[in-house]
Amino acid sequence: MTYRQIIALDAMGGDFGPQVMIPAAANVLSKMESTRFLIYGDQKKIEPVLNEYPELIRHSEIHHTDIVISSHDKPSVALRNGKGSSMRLAIEAVKDGTANGIVSAGNTGALMAMSKLLLKCLPGITRPAIASVMPSEKGKTVVLDLGANLACDAEVLTQFAVLGAVYARVVRGVGTPTVGLLNVGTEEMKGHEELRAAARILSSVSFPGKYEGFIEGDDITKGTVDVVVTDGFTGNVALKTAEGVGKLSKHFLTDAFKSSPWAMLGYFLARGAINRMKDKVDPRKYNGGMFLGLNGVCVKSHGGSDVMGTENAILMAYDLVRNNFNQRVADEIEQLMSQESFVSAVGM
Amino acid sequence: MTYRQIIALDAMGGDFGPQVMIPAAANVLSKMESTRFLIYGDQKKIEPVLNEYPELIRHSEIHHTDIVISSHDKPSVALRNGKGSSMRLAIEAVKDGTANGIVSAGNTGALMAMSKLLLKCLPGITRPAIASVMPSEKGKTVVLDLGANLACDAEVLTQFAVLGAVYARVVRGVGTPTVGLLNVGTEEMKGHEELRAAARILSSVSFPGKYEGFIEGDDITKGTVDVVVTDGFTGNVALKTAEGVGKLSKHFLTDAFKSSPWAMLGYFLARGAINRMKDKVDPRKYNGGMFLGLNGVCVKSHGGSDVMGTENAILMAYDLVRNNFNQRVADEIEQLMSQESFVSAVGM
Repeated sequence: MTYRQIIALDAMGGDFGPQVMIPAAANVLSKMESTRFLIYGDQKKIEPVLNEYPELIRHSEIHHTDIVISSHDKPSVALRNGKGSSMRLAIEAVKDGTANGIVSAGNTGALMAMSKLLLKCLPGITRPAIASVMPSEKGKTVVLDLGANLACDAEVLTQFAVLGAVYARVVRGVGTPTVGLLNVGTEEMKGHEELRAAARILSSVSFPGKYEGFIEGDDITKGTVDVVVTDGFTGNVALKTAEGVGKLSKHFLTDAFKSSPWAMLGYFLARGAINRMKDKVDPRKYNGGMFLGLNGVCVKSHGGSDVMGTENAILMAYDLVRNNFNQRVADEIEQLMSQESFVSAVGM
Repeated sequence: MTYRQIIALDAMGGDFGPQVMIPAAANVLSKMESTRFLIYGDQKKIEPVLNEYPELIRHSEIHHTDIVISSHDKPSVALRNGKGSSMRLAIEAVKDGTANGIVSAGNTGALMAMSKLLLKCLPGITRPAIASVMPSEKGKTVVLDLGANLACDAEVLTQFAVLGAVYARVVRGVGTPTVGLLNVGTEEMKGHEELRAAARILSSVSFPGKYEGFIEGDDITKGTVDVVVTDGFTGNVALKTAEGVGKLSKHFLTDAFKSSPWAMLGYFLARGAINRMKDKVDPRKYNGGMFLGLNGVCVKSHGGSDVMGTENAILMAYDLVRNNFNQRVADEIEQLMSQESFVSAVGM
């Protein structure tokens, strides 16, 4: 049988390992036929779970290894001692072309360091970014970088804009995605020099998106733009702050509904609508940090994700592969670098 | 009559000018006796509003000026052309000791530039910070800097920790406030060099708070620490992202309750509890950016604030003055700078 997609799974990462990764893969398989999974990890732990999914058994193979990267290992330690680990073997499968993409719920720093080392960046990309999708009033917003690069110069921010715009266009189907640079104000003179320089470049080049200017933190959830570009430090703080406020709202709402018999009855009557609302912002539906800009598809699932969240992360990898994301990025970056305005702006 | 507090009000700032500032001052006066207001701005616009508050008339005086700083003026332009403006006159009242504090809903950049120029920093403080209070699962969290300084070195971050800790202690009544540095992870090696250096300093000096280490974005709303210290770029993005998520939650919740007759009835029954919840996170109760570290109390009210929000900002100024905040900071900073461990850490 010829498979359209082959996804390598690091089955040993995260809080639940194969207990979550295997059922998630089975769910993806039931929706997306013609997919094959290469499962890396401890056979003794994988098999008992896999045995419950006969269809997945037919479309997967286990590659046994005892070695696992711990969630506490520093990236440098993981690089040095991680040979033969489930994470590294899964990345190597992508590197040598055996698989089209890899999904792991393991140590983020180690996954990024290893995939950078093994897969390398796409031609013209200086640094990979971690991208994710966040809910907004208008639908969904792509945000990058979420933590791969603490500080970014103007050229790197410009590359992130291309990565985000290509993602919004080819995967999310937005014709001309709008792109904003996250800043502390919308006026031209605001922010760090790198941001202002990136703004000048994005205003002068042609790329697959439309540069809308600086945006502020609340524009992420307003849906002011399709793609929010920022450095990894700011993006990581913004993402986690947003998660925190989401949890706080849920906490206060739950308290409110428990506070009196009338409120409880009110919840009972409105529970259908409230559950639909919760569903809209369910963090599991947004699980998955895509490592964009690498020469191979790599998606990080949250370490605490359940089956539904992990399924979403695998589907992210699936979508990137299916839409030939990396080739599209390579084409657009080549196109960008050939522009006189880009060359002169970056050389300044 | 001897007043315990004299507050200067820039009545011309924000979207509503005297329409909001005057009723807010009247409300504060009804709660906090022995307060006098010096009202700066256009007499023709102030008087009609003031005439509705006889008690406030008895405890205030209007200082007329036609000159107003526009919300669009760059700080440099405001400094050059703002002589005699309502904002500048109000700050000058604090500078010359006529008033104890100033509240403005005007142009933030201009207010910061003018108050830095006129009031100067407290001895030992290199840069003032904008501080505010955010709701958390455990109560309230003080966060600074929210935008005064885009980049901050370790010494400045340490000073912010002192400012925040003194505020939490003397104004909010927290015995030994816990302090965290906002970062992208809690491990020692995470983040920018300035953050790691600030962490080393805070771990080795004695100051009015207890340093708890690095924290992440979601710790703000978890209430992990009493005081969150960060640079103004990150703090501004975090604050606005949090505001955006709060609005999104409200938006989705309103939609949910409107989505069916059962949900509407549910809302009707639970509305008391839901309103109490909304009240807890009402942005107006958190309005007010305190400019901490200046030799004089200065509070910025949000330009779009209504009477209740503006009242909160005036009360913030009131609390800072009443608790002798600046003198306490000056004492603590002097104490900090006399410590061998601080001197050697900063000198590194």
